[in-house]
Amino acid sequence: MYINTASYYLPELIVSNEYYTNLIGLTDEWIYKRSGIKRRAKAGTNENTNTMSIDAIKPAIDKLPYSIKEVDLIVGATYTPYDTIGTLAHAVQSYFDIPNARVISVSSACSSFVNAVEIVEGYFATNKSQKAIVVASEHNTAYSDDSDGQSGHLWGDAAGAVFISKERLSPSDIRVVDLNTTGLAHIGKGIEGVYLRPNEGGLKMPYGKDIFVNACKYMIFEVEDILRKNHLTLKDIDHLIPHQANSRIMSSVAASLDLLNGKMITNIEELGNTGCASTIIALSQNWEKFQSDELIVITVFGGGYSSGAMLLKR
Amino acid sequence: MYINTASYYLPELIVSNEYYTNLIGLTDEWIYKRSGIKRRAKAGTNENTNTMSIDAIKPAIDKLPYSIKEVDLIVGATYTPYDTIGTLAHAVQSYFDIPNARVISVSSACSSFVNAVEIVEGYFATNKSQKAIVVASEHNTAYSDDSDGQSGHLWGDAAGAVFISKERLSPSDIRVVDLNTTGLAHIGKGIEGVYLRPNEGGLKMPYGKDIFVNACKYMIFEVEDILRKNHLTLKDIDHLIPHQANSRIMSSVAASLDLLNGKMITNIEELGNTGCASTIIALSQNWEKFQSDELIVITVFGGGYSSGAMLLKR
Repeated sequence: MYINTASYYLPELIVSNEYYTNLIGLTDEWIYKRSGIKRRAKAGTNENTNTMSIDAIKPAIDKLPYSIKEVDLIVGATYTPYDTIGTLAHAVQSYFDIPNARVISVSSACSSFVNAVEIVEGYFATNKSQKAIVVASEHNTAYSDDSDGQSGHLWGDAAGAVFISKERLSPSDIRVVDLNTTGLAHIGKGIEGVYLRPNEGGLKMPYGKDIFVNACKYMIFEVEDILRKNHLTLKDIDHLIPHQANSRIMSSVAASLDLLNGKMITNIEELGNTGCASTIIALSQNWEKFQSDELIVITVFGGGYSSGAMLLKR
Repeated sequence: MYINTASYYLPELIVSNEYYTNLIGLTDEWIYKRSGIKRRAKAGTNENTNTMSIDAIKPAIDKLPYSIKEVDLIVGATYTPYDTIGTLAHAVQSYFDIPNARVISVSSACSSFVNAVEIVEGYFATNKSQKAIVVASEHNTAYSDDSDGQSGHLWGDAAGAVFISKERLSPSDIRVVDLNTTGLAHIGKGIEGVYLRPNEGGLKMPYGKDIFVNACKYMIFEVEDILRKNHLTLKDIDHLIPHQANSRIMSSVAASLDLLNGKMITNIEELGNTGCASTIIALSQNWEKFQSDELIVITVFGGGYSSGAMLLKR
């Protein structure tokens, strides 16, 4: 299958680290050293995961080699839902008036982008879909607590979307060579490490260290596993896009993989942790940079826990 | 693919219509006439969609012709999540310590059971899974308002689970002959008809009439469509299990289909609307009743909107 285009949306309002200095005394230096984050976007009063999903797709419309009306599958991904019934996938079908699409929204937390593409892979395999949208949208600040010194400053709001077709439709399409996901709820702190319970305090991260250790371990595992299965080595990778949870996690992953400078793509300094949208946004921001035949690996880890990877080739 | 077994869980606490008479003056007769509901179960203080998912699976363990540890895919379904990060699928993997399973939770509202099985169909097609759990759990009362005269009295709490294998594993397995889902967010009141916005008042149903009209229309459409595609007629159906939203919707569907008495299975009188768990529970409650070679059709409609159907054969 082939990614035809990737696009994203960032809310206008930018929140710098100084906001948290004034609120709870966390300095810019302290936040940056521990997370790599300088600033993050925050959704406006009338924005939510549904509106951001629509706004993430709009820039893609003109770049598509087909009409959005031809899309026959919409998979939404979020752990910060605006509406669990009229989900982001439904909002996209409604707004763009897409007449013949299956719709479903999913969560496997920050790994959901890869889980969602794996669901598309299944629909392509059964021939129930030929052209799909995967849209990931996170409105973290609707559920996080700015005054929570453990994790309130880590989260950003944003959305990203990819259009995926079963067949190649354009020379610039990026091929999904392989992908995998792994459920890890039985590992470490699992379902307690980070949680979002709408009726019990929202988004909390009581076990940051356990997440750190397992995110490093399994994002590395997923990279090595997908390379091995495709008879490739680390030297063959041109770009690595890890989930943007924390720059220290990403640096640890890069160091363990002995990754050459410049191969790792990040956006966390400007965006914070944008959940399952983070790797789509990084893919979109660097879309023009990827050269013909270059290999890109996306590796993700999500609360709950779960992990996954995608091997892409331009 | 084959359903190996179905099981369910109902909370102990039963709420009768008299509760709503005392609370807001809705009489037993008024509620029963408009919905077919006499009583519904309500989750206890320490229960939620995650605990109910686990409790729904427990009775199936001894009936399985394999160990639950062999399950390689867990798909959770809910629109009333306890935790959107440590989801019900994650809770199941964690509790039963299932070592090699992909995990994902989904929502397409009350149609999600069929959407979830369609996702399993895709994983079977790519050979990424051989044995899957689909678990649907709704904790409606965590988000509904008992004093909401429009819909507060309609909801029940419950969970249901099916184990599905790619190959037949037992003579009593029920074969999934065919299934389909349809996204309908662009139809009628779509994403506004019924919604659950955790930060905006929870579960509300402002457009009950629009839901009624479209639920009837599309549950009928799905039945006729799946029969036509399988060269069957209504006379060939032995049992119809519609989503249990409202007895008037179900009666209208049965009348339009000219369905013979006794062919429609319902549980709404005792359970209320248990969301995407409703048809699994009905399947489980009648599991022993289905005779060899009998055909069962499940038809569903969900808020947002979406619809779907499954054709089953024992």
